[in-house]
Amino acid sequence: MITAKNRIQDRIEELFTLAPGSGGANRPAYSKQEAGAMLLVAGWAREVGLEPGVDPFGNLWCLPPGDEPFVTSGSHVDTVPDGGRLDGPLGTVLAVEAAGRVSERRGILVCAAEEAARFGAGTLGSRSMTGKLSDGDLARMCDTEGQNALGARAEYLVALEEIPRLERAPLERVLAHVEVHIEQRTDLRKHGLSLGVATTIAGPVRHRLRFTGEVAHAGETPATERRDALCAAADTVLISEKLCKQYAPRTTATAGTLLIHPNSLTSIPGVAELGVDIRSVEAREAKRLLDELLGGARTAADSRGVDLTDVPLSASEPTVMDEAMVRAAEAACEKLDVSCGRCVSFAGHDAQHIAGVVPAALLFVASENGVSHAPDEAADWKDVEAALAVLTALMKNLQGGKR
Amino acid sequence: MITAKNRIQDRIEELFTLAPGSGGANRPAYSKQEAGAMLLVAGWAREVGLEPGVDPFGNLWCLPPGDEPFVTSGSHVDTVPDGGRLDGPLGTVLAVEAAGRVSERRGILVCAAEEAARFGAGTLGSRSMTGKLSDGDLARMCDTEGQNALGARAEYLVALEEIPRLERAPLERVLAHVEVHIEQRTDLRKHGLSLGVATTIAGPVRHRLRFTGEVAHAGETPATERRDALCAAADTVLISEKLCKQYAPRTTATAGTLLIHPNSLTSIPGVAELGVDIRSVEAREAKRLLDELLGGARTAADSRGVDLTDVPLSASEPTVMDEAMVRAAEAACEKLDVSCGRCVSFAGHDAQHIAGVVPAALLFVASENGVSHAPDEAADWKDVEAALAVLTALMKNLQGGKR
Repeated sequence: MITAKNRIQDRIEELFTLAPGSGGANRPAYSKQEAGAMLLVAGWAREVGLEPGVDPFGNLWCLPPGDEPFVTSGSHVDTVPDGGRLDGPLGTVLAVEAAGRVSERRGILVCAAEEAARFGAGTLGSRSMTGKLSDGDLARMCDTEGQNALGARAEYLVALEEIPRLERAPLERVLAHVEVHIEQRTDLRKHGLSLGVATTIAGPVRHRLRFTGEVAHAGETPATERRDALCAAADTVLISEKLCKQYAPRTTATAGTLLIHPNSLTSIPGVAELGVDIRSVEAREAKRLLDELLGGARTAADSRGVDLTDVPLSASEPTVMDEAMVRAAEAACEKLDVSCGRCVSFAGHDAQHIAGVVPAALLFVASENGVSHAPDEAADWKDVEAALAVLTALMKNLQGGKR
Repeated sequence: MITAKNRIQDRIEELFTLAPGSGGANRPAYSKQEAGAMLLVAGWAREVGLEPGVDPFGNLWCLPPGDEPFVTSGSHVDTVPDGGRLDGPLGTVLAVEAAGRVSERRGILVCAAEEAARFGAGTLGSRSMTGKLSDGDLARMCDTEGQNALGARAEYLVALEEIPRLERAPLERVLAHVEVHIEQRTDLRKHGLSLGVATTIAGPVRHRLRFTGEVAHAGETPATERRDALCAAADTVLISEKLCKQYAPRTTATAGTLLIHPNSLTSIPGVAELGVDIRSVEAREAKRLLDELLGGARTAADSRGVDLTDVPLSASEPTVMDEAMVRAAEAACEKLDVSCGRCVSFAGHDAQHIAGVVPAALLFVASENGVSHAPDEAADWKDVEAALAVLTALMKNLQGGKR
């Protein structure tokens, strides 16, 4: 007999091994591999009586028959390069399982292209669907091969041809949406909790700082005559590190990308492009940290005769999740005797964008080790089981909602 | 009537425009473009009665008839990407001109693959010829396309087929060698001098420092749990900058290369590979600076829970040039009333390797602006004229030397 545990674990494993990379799973945003994973989910959804359809943004909807409103759950199935087995698939597979346990008025919504790794920006499917991104925006996002997100989506949709196309996302039928996701740190485990209910999702603020000095001979240019772009960038990296400690735990700063030119052992670097990511659950704190960082970067550049150009890449406000949904999730946990706590998320999720148009909740399943975006992602089965029970109960409770 | 000035300037321009890049000249080490430049020089050498020949290392020899010993001059004709018109060609074109003014017992030696840009190591032709590099060493050096230097040299030699092949470099016939090179800083101009005579050439010491931390989510990883490889590398860049100022002017330190992984705006960098170049005219000072730098890097890594691997890439001792040759050059300048001063070179040159087997001198022509390895390289004609006069007189004076 196939138990729910076997089925859930087998499906997670089937997704994980669908398109292996070197150690992890490789299903880039808007790729054939992501489409392959969507087809698997569509097949599982049919088994519980749902009818799959793909909206113009590539999101997979698994709909109940008729025109009734319904509650949805789901996450995503794309991954970062060599990603783990839980980020995305856990919430997606649990959504299928819960849909089988809730009768009528329930569906599945798996959002496309959630991970930012390929196009430098994530949650493309949910943001397009909720009017936050246009086709023009997608056309301007390119991967390292020069393919843009709009073109990639077109090819991805061709790979999904066997699923009926929806003319538009049926958001007006959705009563509420619940996304379950693996936690990406170890706070829940530290507090002995199985689940976390997100109250706020930090908005990332991203800037590219371009330092322009002067390429010169590494041996022949005296220290006093150097205009070293890398030194100015390095100084800024350490300022970012210091600010990240100073503003903890409500705000983070990370220098994640750095490219220098000409990147030659015999040349003083003339150009350094540094990418910084700031996240906060308080918009004002993010702004204060950014101001301090830019001020520091400017001093680092000026003191070395280096020019600085600041290119803002994106700026999102934190998302405050619907308090009624948070309480509904807490009530379900309490009734089922599942330990849970309120938490914030510093990572972006589809639920935060869906929350703008539909009451939405984001539940975290305790991570065993805090590993995220890597093959070692892990969760204890008892916590997964608790999440499934809470999700099922919560969906039933939300079925009574009105549109 | 073609004046010497026209001829010299035209030849420098002909070399500059032979293989244009985007703004500068592109004649990579051991490329068809370098071979094309060698063919031009061979043609000019024939006009002054010299017979070209290529040694097994790709160096161009333009030999006087017979078996007599002779004095050589010359530099190189390969360039960095988008290089200038003087680095290499100035000394090479002046060598042709001087050969036309000195009768008998004079030749030209243009060394191959002097620039390090393509294979990460330079002076390949002169080091191979003087036994400092083996074919095996060349086979291990790769360009960014994966082509190794040994294979590139074989193709380069095919492109030089029309020039007779010498079985070996006829070094035993060389009485002395003089290389003229454009200065790569502005010290001479600052002191009102036309020429510089190198007494010491710094030996570069190069290391690759590999910092290995842990890739983690930029938003979800608290400041205290980060193992950020870029922060450790940035700290080391600033230590290198501080040491470069502290050890000036006899020793330099430059962090010229940096690659980080995964180089993603949403990830904490897990790996950072930093390349450092240390140059000194005193081996002990280079060693002291290196020890301080490695100590600082280790602390920068340890304090962040980051591992550090130190990979020594190369270590050369400074070359002290032949004092008799330095005095001979000074005497020629004095006799011709050309202002000159002793100097050191922090860049590597073929003359320093040739100096190991033949008395050799390295003369610098004052740079107008200190620009090196870029299209703006410039020298005042009066300084070029002075260099030609001194080179010619020096070669005549050296013809009496014994082998």
